[in-house]
Amino acid sequence: MTLWALEIEYDGRPFMGWQRQKHGLAIQQVVEEAAARVRGGAEVTEAVSAGRTDAGVHAMGMIVQIELPELTPFRIREAMNFHLKPNPIVVLRCCPAPDGWNARFSATSRSYRYIISNRAVPPALEAGRVWHVRQKLDAGLMHDAAQTLLGHHDFSSFRASACQAKSPMRTLDFLAVTREGDKIYVETRARSFLHHQVRNMVGSLVKVGEGSWPAPKLAEVLDAKSRAAASVTAPAEGLYFTGVVYDPALPLE
Amino acid sequence: MTLWALEIEYDGRPFMGWQRQKHGLAIQQVVEEAAARVRGGAEVTEAVSAGRTDAGVHAMGMIVQIELPELTPFRIREAMNFHLKPNPIVVLRCCPAPDGWNARFSATSRSYRYIISNRAVPPALEAGRVWHVRQKLDAGLMHDAAQTLLGHHDFSSFRASACQAKSPMRTLDFLAVTREGDKIYVETRARSFLHHQVRNMVGSLVKVGEGSWPAPKLAEVLDAKSRAAASVTAPAEGLYFTGVVYDPALPLE
Repeated sequence: MTLWALEIEYDGRPFMGWQRQKHGLAIQQVVEEAAARVRGGAEVTEAVSAGRTDAGVHAMGMIVQIELPELTPFRIREAMNFHLKPNPIVVLRCCPAPDGWNARFSATSRSYRYIISNRAVPPALEAGRVWHVRQKLDAGLMHDAAQTLLGHHDFSSFRASACQAKSPMRTLDFLAVTREGDKIYVETRARSFLHHQVRNMVGSLVKVGEGSWPAPKLAEVLDAKSRAAASVTAPAEGLYFTGVVYDPALPLE
Repeated sequence: MTLWALEIEYDGRPFMGWQRQKHGLAIQQVVEEAAARVRGGAEVTEAVSAGRTDAGVHAMGMIVQIELPELTPFRIREAMNFHLKPNPIVVLRCCPAPDGWNARFSATSRSYRYIISNRAVPPALEAGRVWHVRQKLDAGLMHDAAQTLLGHHDFSSFRASACQAKSPMRTLDFLAVTREGDKIYVETRARSFLHHQVRNMVGSLVKVGEGSWPAPKLAEVLDAKSRAAASVTAPAEGLYFTGVVYDPALPLE
């Protein structure tokens, strides 16, 4: 057996999130059971992912490591996708893991996209895939305010109470807000994020976008270093884990 | 009561198509029953749509006419959306129907989009919303070949055997094929289409795109005026009814 790196896409709606749960199906469990079948045995080994997404969060470029046979990347991908069916999880690309590489600890940056449907009526075609915000949002204002969060800060104001990270210090490398028609896209990138950090930042950015908060308030919220200072957590359904960077890059195919 | 024009969006996956069926839920039935509730009565009146989409086909700008009370467009939209829940059907905009206007017969053009996911692995995030074609497609070749179908022709080669139109003659005004990443978009517009015409044209365009047919074959298939000459019907799941034109335009709000 060899350690493989798999790039996977999933629809988060039917799952309890990445991490195995006692009650309800998790993406980790589905990937581990498919891999066990590809190995031809009943023994399940642990899958480690670059990020542990919450229930309802989607992914289009999640990286996972797991033990699999020594086959070509094409055969590993086909075999995994056969056994992942009918779950909405697919392996997009894969490669044997480089020596000493770890899906979680070797990641030098992680990217997320958050999608808001900003229109009067709820989404029919994209239910469960976007956050519906009725109140008209000013994406330009949101973008400008977002820039105050860039850099190395104590992000306690945007950290879930259940967050298990040792430190609330994080370095935010990129945070951009753009509008396309009635959709608002929030793109962000950092080495790592605190639990709920992206959803909490989006919740507060929406306060600025709808005009409830003046833009400078976002810096005050950050300075307060208190979850109570920030706004609500944006719902999971609008969040997509979009990619991971490793140095050197994985030779995925 | 007044005749209203409603612009609706729907996810076609859970429905038997637009038209009422004895076995299984149709979009028409859901709209008619929601409208009856908005009218506060049990009596159901008929909804007429600009197009009758098949099972699994989606819509983002379908126009429907139905009797509703004399209220503001805002209240009609809110009331309809309340009663349409939890079905994935929403009223986007609406207005009282102009005198003599008919959702079906007054339409001067109808537009459709067809989306192909053109990559090695099946879609997880967009299952049921795109046609997955593994074989690499050349969108430029498809677009060039598509132009031979423009204009006034006998479209018998692209007509479902169940088609009830009196004539196979149709005028195709627009047919464009573009690629964005691993998606191929086919956009088309005509006064009206034969049953399955868009899906049958897409099925044959894919033959050209994958290199199985030389581009000039599309003109031969059209000339044959026989369904047997063309390729398979592309699946319903990739098709979106995107809009209708009326002259004068509806004052939707």
